[in-house]
Amino acid sequence: MIRIGIDLGGTNIAVGAVNERHEIIARCSVPTGAERPAQAVIADMCAAVEEALRRAGLTAADCTSIGIGSPGTCDPETGVVARAYNLGWKDVPVCRMLTEHFGLPAHLGNDANCAALAEVVAGAAAGRRDVVLITLGTGVGGGIIIGGKIYAGMRGAGAELGHTALVLDGEPCTCGRRGCWEAYASATALIRQTREAAVQNPQSLLAQVPAEQINGRTVFDAADRGDAAAQRVIDRYCEYIAAGMTDIVNALAPEMILLGGGVSRQGERLLAPIREYIATHCFGQREGAIPVVAAAQLGNDAGIIGAAAL
Amino acid sequence: MIRIGIDLGGTNIAVGAVNERHEIIARCSVPTGAERPAQAVIADMCAAVEEALRRAGLTAADCTSIGIGSPGTCDPETGVVARAYNLGWKDVPVCRMLTEHFGLPAHLGNDANCAALAEVVAGAAAGRRDVVLITLGTGVGGGIIIGGKIYAGMRGAGAELGHTALVLDGEPCTCGRRGCWEAYASATALIRQTREAAVQNPQSLLAQVPAEQINGRTVFDAADRGDAAAQRVIDRYCEYIAAGMTDIVNALAPEMILLGGGVSRQGERLLAPIREYIATHCFGQREGAIPVVAAAQLGNDAGIIGAAAL
Repeated sequence: MIRIGIDLGGTNIAVGAVNERHEIIARCSVPTGAERPAQAVIADMCAAVEEALRRAGLTAADCTSIGIGSPGTCDPETGVVARAYNLGWKDVPVCRMLTEHFGLPAHLGNDANCAALAEVVAGAAAGRRDVVLITLGTGVGGGIIIGGKIYAGMRGAGAELGHTALVLDGEPCTCGRRGCWEAYASATALIRQTREAAVQNPQSLLAQVPAEQINGRTVFDAADRGDAAAQRVIDRYCEYIAAGMTDIVNALAPEMILLGGGVSRQGERLLAPIREYIATHCFGQREGAIPVVAAAQLGNDAGIIGAAAL
Repeated sequence: MIRIGIDLGGTNIAVGAVNERHEIIARCSVPTGAERPAQAVIADMCAAVEEALRRAGLTAADCTSIGIGSPGTCDPETGVVARAYNLGWKDVPVCRMLTEHFGLPAHLGNDANCAALAEVVAGAAAGRRDVVLITLGTGVGGGIIIGGKIYAGMRGAGAELGHTALVLDGEPCTCGRRGCWEAYASATALIRQTREAAVQNPQSLLAQVPAEQINGRTVFDAADRGDAAAQRVIDRYCEYIAAGMTDIVNALAPEMILLGGGVSRQGERLLAPIREYIATHCFGQREGAIPVVAAAQLGNDAGIIGAAAL
C-alpha cells in the first residue's frame, strides 16, 4: 500500500511515495514558483508526483491516497487552502484538483500539523496519543495530535500556538497582534535578542560580529567560547520557549512535547533547561502532568511522511 | 434511563437524579465538611444520593450510572481524585468507593470539565462539537470539549486554562507561577483592579467604597453611575478576558467559547467588547476562525448535569 505525500513549501514542493512502514521509497522536489497562479503550481506538483512514482516504478493506480501539507490555514474537511500568505493562495481547492488529476482520494493538512502527525506515526512520538510539536523557525509553528489524530479546529484554523500571548501588549508579531510567543521564541526572535545583547554588551564576543551577520547560531558559538552575555541570551531564550510550553502543559496536558526546527539541533543545551522550567512552573509543579520533552526526529522528511499519513 | 450526577464542591455536595433529557428530576444538597476524612465525605455523598433517589421514588437499581464532578486534578481513567487542595484530598479512589456502595458504574471528571459537558449536552452549546467553557470566579476555570467529549489530557490534568501566561513574570498567581491569565481575569483579580483604581483615583466613586467592601459588582455599579475610572477598569478587564480567549481561538479554534461564573451575569456589557477584541486580535483577524462567544446557561445546575453525562 503506497501513499503519496506532498510537502508544499514557499520555496520547494517535495513529493514522496511512502510505504506502509512510513518510509519514503521515492521522491522528487521542484521549485514552488509561488509567484505564479495556483493552477500552475499545482500542475508542477502533479508532474513531481508522477516523476516520484516513475522513479519507484509505480503509477497512481498503485497508490491508495494522496496527502498534501500546506502552509497557512487549511480546511481538512473541504480540502481547501483558505489562506496561505507565503504562497499568495486564497481559497484554493487543492484536494479537488489533485483528485481530478490522479483519480485518488486527496487529504489536506497544515504543514505543522503534518509534521506532528509524522512524528506520531513514525518518529519521536511513535505510538503516543496526545502530542504537541513546536517548530522554531522564522516563526513558531504548532501541531496538535489528540487521540493519535490531528486536531485542527474550526475550518483547520487551530494550532497557531505561536500566536498565543506571552507578554500582553509586548513585542510586535507578524500576525498583527503584540506579545505573541512567536515574537519571543522563534529563531527570528533569537536573532533579534542576540543583536540587542551585542549592542548592550560592547565587550561581548557578540559585539564583534557585524549585526547583519548575526544568525541563529551566533549566540551558541559565542557561548561555546565562554561569552557570558551570550549565555544570558540563551538562558532567557530557553525561558521564553519553556514558558510557552508550560502553557501547553497546563492547557492540554499532552504526553509529549516535541521541539523541531533548526534551533532544536542544539539538543540538550535547550531541552534540559526547558524541562527544568516546566517542572518548576507548570500546574502542580513536579507533581503535575509533566510531559516528555524531546527533539523531533524526522527533520525535513516529516512533511512528506505526515502528508502521506493524512 | 436515570443517571446520578454529583457536584462535589468545597462547601456543598449537590446531588441530582437526571433523566434522558438532561433534566434534574430530584436533588439533594448537604454540606461537604471538607475538614473531615474523605471516607466521611463520601459516606455523606452516598446518603445524599439515596435521599435524592428517594425523593424521585427511585432506587439505585433504576439508574444506569453515577457521575461525579470534583475540583482538582481528576483522572477519568482510574476514577481517582489525584489532588484537590480545597478538599484536602490526595489520591482518593472515589469511583471505586461509589461503585462498591451502589453497584453502579461510576465516572469522574473535573468540575470545570463537567460544566462544559453540561453546556454541550443541554445548555448554550447544545449540539456543538468543539467548545471551551471559561468560568470566572475565585480563579479562572476551564473546560475543553473536543468532538463532543471532555478533553482532559494526561491523568486528567489538562484544561487548566487559567494558568497559561498572559504577562510573563507578571502578577503572582495562586499556582506558584507569575503572570497567569487567572491573575488578571478572575473575579478576584477584578476586585484587586478595582481597589487599585480606587487608590489611584481618589475623586472616583470607587474611592467612596471602603476597600474591604469592594466586591466583584462594585466597579459595575460605579460605571452605571457614570464613573469614568470604573469604566476604565471594566474596559481593561474585558481586554484581559479577551486576550486569554484569543489565545484559545488561536490554539484550538473551537466553534464556541462560553463564559460562566458570577461576573458573566454582566452579559453583553462584557461579551460585546470581548467579541470585538477577538475579531481584531485573533490570527487572521476578522477572516479568522472567530467562534461564537456567549454566556453559559446552566448556572449551578451545570455541575450535576455534566457529572451525570460523564
